[in-house]
Amino acid sequence: MRMRRKKHLEEKLAQCDNLICFPHVDSDVREAVLTKEYLDYAAVFGNDHPVHMEIGCGKGQFVTELAARRPDLNFIAVEVNRNVISMACHKAIEMGLSNVLFLQGGAELLQKYIPSDSIGRIYLNFSCPYPKATYANRRLTNPKYLEIYRDICAEGAEVHQKTDNMHFFEYSIEQFTAAGYKLKNVSLDLHASEFEGNIVTEYENRFASMGMPIYRLEAYRD
Amino acid sequence: MRMRRKKHLEEKLAQCDNLICFPHVDSDVREAVLTKEYLDYAAVFGNDHPVHMEIGCGKGQFVTELAARRPDLNFIAVEVNRNVISMACHKAIEMGLSNVLFLQGGAELLQKYIPSDSIGRIYLNFSCPYPKATYANRRLTNPKYLEIYRDICAEGAEVHQKTDNMHFFEYSIEQFTAAGYKLKNVSLDLHASEFEGNIVTEYENRFASMGMPIYRLEAYRD
Repeated sequence: MRMRRKKHLEEKLAQCDNLICFPHVDSDVREAVLTKEYLDYAAVFGNDHPVHMEIGCGKGQFVTELAARRPDLNFIAVEVNRNVISMACHKAIEMGLSNVLFLQGGAELLQKYIPSDSIGRIYLNFSCPYPKATYANRRLTNPKYLEIYRDICAEGAEVHQKTDNMHFFEYSIEQFTAAGYKLKNVSLDLHASEFEGNIVTEYENRFASMGMPIYRLEAYRD
Repeated sequence: MRMRRKKHLEEKLAQCDNLICFPHVDSDVREAVLTKEYLDYAAVFGNDHPVHMEIGCGKGQFVTELAARRPDLNFIAVEVNRNVISMACHKAIEMGLSNVLFLQGGAELLQKYIPSDSIGRIYLNFSCPYPKATYANRRLTNPKYLEIYRDICAEGAEVHQKTDNMHFFEYSIEQFTAAGYKLKNVSLDLHASEFEGNIVTEYENRFASMGMPIYRLEAYRD
């Protein structure tokens, strides 16, 4: 889906830096953080809470709602689309959240900014399924990305995935298990299941209201 | 589903032995085989072809069709229900198949009769899903049975599962991966997929014709 380019986008992004948006930190802290090789979570968040991550946060409905519910956790929200990440960033500002950091770019960027073994959980919510086989290497559960997640994830970290796309879910089950992950809390119709505490994303709302099943899994290592 | 007890069942089973039905071998060979601790495939089948297995063969539509297609393989068909296994056994006799052996009993019996590391593939087709959590230990993908499959399976063997029951499939994905299996050729709607060579079972026919999705996976180790 292509979005109409938002007015004042450039001003918004400038306010948030080019690649990394810290809605809640002073500009001098921001500068200090950006000069380091990897993100300094203590400097950014001002605490040592576990850091969870959403890759492909879209307009930020999921990550901001989760961050508001869980002040005991920090969140990094990654999104390649500059239009939507600026909306997500400003949503966090409006909600007064101090535990979300936004990173604009593809998942490849994670290797540059995220320290190894530092992420406690990764969320993949309604990532683009790239249905054509020739684009399989762009899917966020392809082996290349799973390798990156493995690097940045701490011991015991889980990857939680939701999608409305059946073939993408089939593909993801195969790729996760091929990469040595095990799967739990698998749901082939999330909204008809007994799963509690689900945070509904913008896409999820639309697809579920059309009666389409939502697929969900939790991938883990032991 | 409870079946009407077939007439002449006892005669039929006597013709096939109590526990193990060899529709194609002479009675003296049969006796010799049964005195051994484990099944002697060479004596039963008269060749050293790979041995594949269906657990829960029902009336035998799948295993007899597959055995007819694949004379280069031997098959062991396991079924706990004496009524239906006698029908399966006689179907094999009528088709003149010499590469199927029937074993009447639960999956626990496999430890008694099947040598370790000897099975090339296991099929689980529309096994009873036992929907109640209290009966989860009867499901054919529960950890106890996966342990038995692991013991009797040769290196590189796969377990192929089909079911129409969504929650049983979710459970199976979780149990297979927890037991160290990886999954491939996962299909959440087999009859709408591009999978070729599917042999449709009695149950599958009924459920698919009602428009219900058929779930399928292949579990493997590497």
